[in-house]
Amino acid sequence: VRGAVCVVTGGLGFIGSNLALRLAAAGAAVRVIDSLVPTHGGDVRNLGAVDVESLIARISDPRCAEVVEGADVIFNVAGQVSHTASMIDPRLDLELNTVDHAAFLETVRRVSPSSRIVHVSTRQVYGRVPHLPANENTVANPVDVNGVAKLAGEQLHMVYARAHSMATTSLRLSNVYGARQRLTSDELGFLPVFMRNVLADETIEIFGDGSQRRDCLHVDDVVDAMLLATDDEAVGKIYNVGHRCSQSLAEIAEMMVAISGSKSEIRFVPWPGEHQRIDIGSFKTDSSKIEAELGWVPTIDLAEGIRRTVTFYRDHPWYQSSI
Amino acid sequence: VRGAVCVVTGGLGFIGSNLALRLAAAGAAVRVIDSLVPTHGGDVRNLGAVDVESLIARISDPRCAEVVEGADVIFNVAGQVSHTASMIDPRLDLELNTVDHAAFLETVRRVSPSSRIVHVSTRQVYGRVPHLPANENTVANPVDVNGVAKLAGEQLHMVYARAHSMATTSLRLSNVYGARQRLTSDELGFLPVFMRNVLADETIEIFGDGSQRRDCLHVDDVVDAMLLATDDEAVGKIYNVGHRCSQSLAEIAEMMVAISGSKSEIRFVPWPGEHQRIDIGSFKTDSSKIEAELGWVPTIDLAEGIRRTVTFYRDHPWYQSSI
Repeated sequence: VRGAVCVVTGGLGFIGSNLALRLAAAGAAVRVIDSLVPTHGGDVRNLGAVDVESLIARISDPRCAEVVEGADVIFNVAGQVSHTASMIDPRLDLELNTVDHAAFLETVRRVSPSSRIVHVSTRQVYGRVPHLPANENTVANPVDVNGVAKLAGEQLHMVYARAHSMATTSLRLSNVYGARQRLTSDELGFLPVFMRNVLADETIEIFGDGSQRRDCLHVDDVVDAMLLATDDEAVGKIYNVGHRCSQSLAEIAEMMVAISGSKSEIRFVPWPGEHQRIDIGSFKTDSSKIEAELGWVPTIDLAEGIRRTVTFYRDHPWYQSSI
Repeated sequence: VRGAVCVVTGGLGFIGSNLALRLAAAGAAVRVIDSLVPTHGGDVRNLGAVDVESLIARISDPRCAEVVEGADVIFNVAGQVSHTASMIDPRLDLELNTVDHAAFLETVRRVSPSSRIVHVSTRQVYGRVPHLPANENTVANPVDVNGVAKLAGEQLHMVYARAHSMATTSLRLSNVYGARQRLTSDELGFLPVFMRNVLADETIEIFGDGSQRRDCLHVDDVVDAMLLATDDEAVGKIYNVGHRCSQSLAEIAEMMVAISGSKSEIRFVPWPGEHQRIDIGSFKTDSSKIEAELGWVPTIDLAEGIRRTVTFYRDHPWYQSSI
């Protein structure tokens, strides 16, 4: 990585900023592109005083050409995360997660076709599947527009690998948590909401009985996976990236309360309709392919991850305020 | 069907016009929406003098609300077909096959959420798959933007079935031929090109050795499938629709020449790069699900279908001129 030119789209957001900081610390020349959509996770403060070139623009913006030209590696992290937002404005989610990526791939093909590209997708593309754990040969059956749009986005990357000989990889991440996640939004998954609640000693509300299971990934493990995904072995492939251990939402909330020493209570509340309609029940990712082919394994268990995350936010209190 | 209000999007095109004429003949009140994109298959002459209301607009147009309001059945056939065009302008294909369908589904949800919806997709969503024949449990691996966009379009219909309780079905059609297909475009598949060639005694050019196999469907069989797909059993489901018999491209060309009595010669030419990059090799659809659940079977074999098609175009010579 030392001396390599690395572009990170969505580089001011949660996963993107953690990656950009790791790359910069390792001696890469880092350039970020981020559109700072207000409801998304991007914030210029995520990169602090680190020396990184930034373009504030959507990845469909023609000015991205100058940023990607000559890049050794492009980490294409930009996208909309919210499942409920995708159901309220389907067009916008399709624009951000699919159409913009087509435009971005065309830009890269034109100005920097030999750049290595690692795209970030989500286990949300699977939706409800007949058997768990889901591996890469499980038929995707997305339950919301976000899952449809993200699946199309990763498939576009695979089309460009085959049709245009570009070196693309896509990673389907499970639920990610850790430092630099926007805690003040309800739209970025349950993990930042729970974390906000425990830090403020607020009641944690769990929809339904809290029995649905998730395999949560610490963002540092995700950054490891993204760096390993630049291997030649990964070109033209899609990988699941999830933790070997899963917990129920109730267990996750209990762990957060206990580890943080929070006074939060946990309350089980009825499902809001807009969430229940797109709920996928329990989910478990089979990540044996990336483990076998790229040697990635998650190294941070949930207890340790929660410990680190709580410490980070107590050291950086601005993440808990909504401005 | 008699007395039912039926909307056909793409209703001035190849499949849409054949369906609209069948519906009108059966006594339905037919309304069509078609954007008449110049390079697509739409032509007002396809419906001739039949009494049908038409809106010339994209399906994302707000005026579609008036057309779909009160519809018993909406046959959502509109879309872009060309694989090569999708690679030249990915954004446009995603707009026409995905984003516009999201807008259309939102319109229907708002003004006519209980309408039955049958969406037309394509076996192109499968791309290159490890085992043939492909059934609905085969993981889609599209090789071009058109396959990505059509898959996302059908998944949107499934999302609206589950999340919004709308009665949608999507049909993955194999290669369709028959009356009212635009013969003068090279972008609508090999079947209309071969048909144009034999009618004009022109040389048929086959890319490669002509050994790749396809299961060709006569449009009248497709219309049967679309009508059967309005059954309650089909709600929220995707079905393959292909012929039980397949032939190589060389065999198909030979049959067309022999049956039409054409003087055309068949020549094998090297693959153009833009076609070879997105070629899927041989393909075979497994349609046992629609056969078992809806009782559909293709009734027109390729020889009979070619016979009918040649007769139709000889009776309607304007299809062979490019204006």
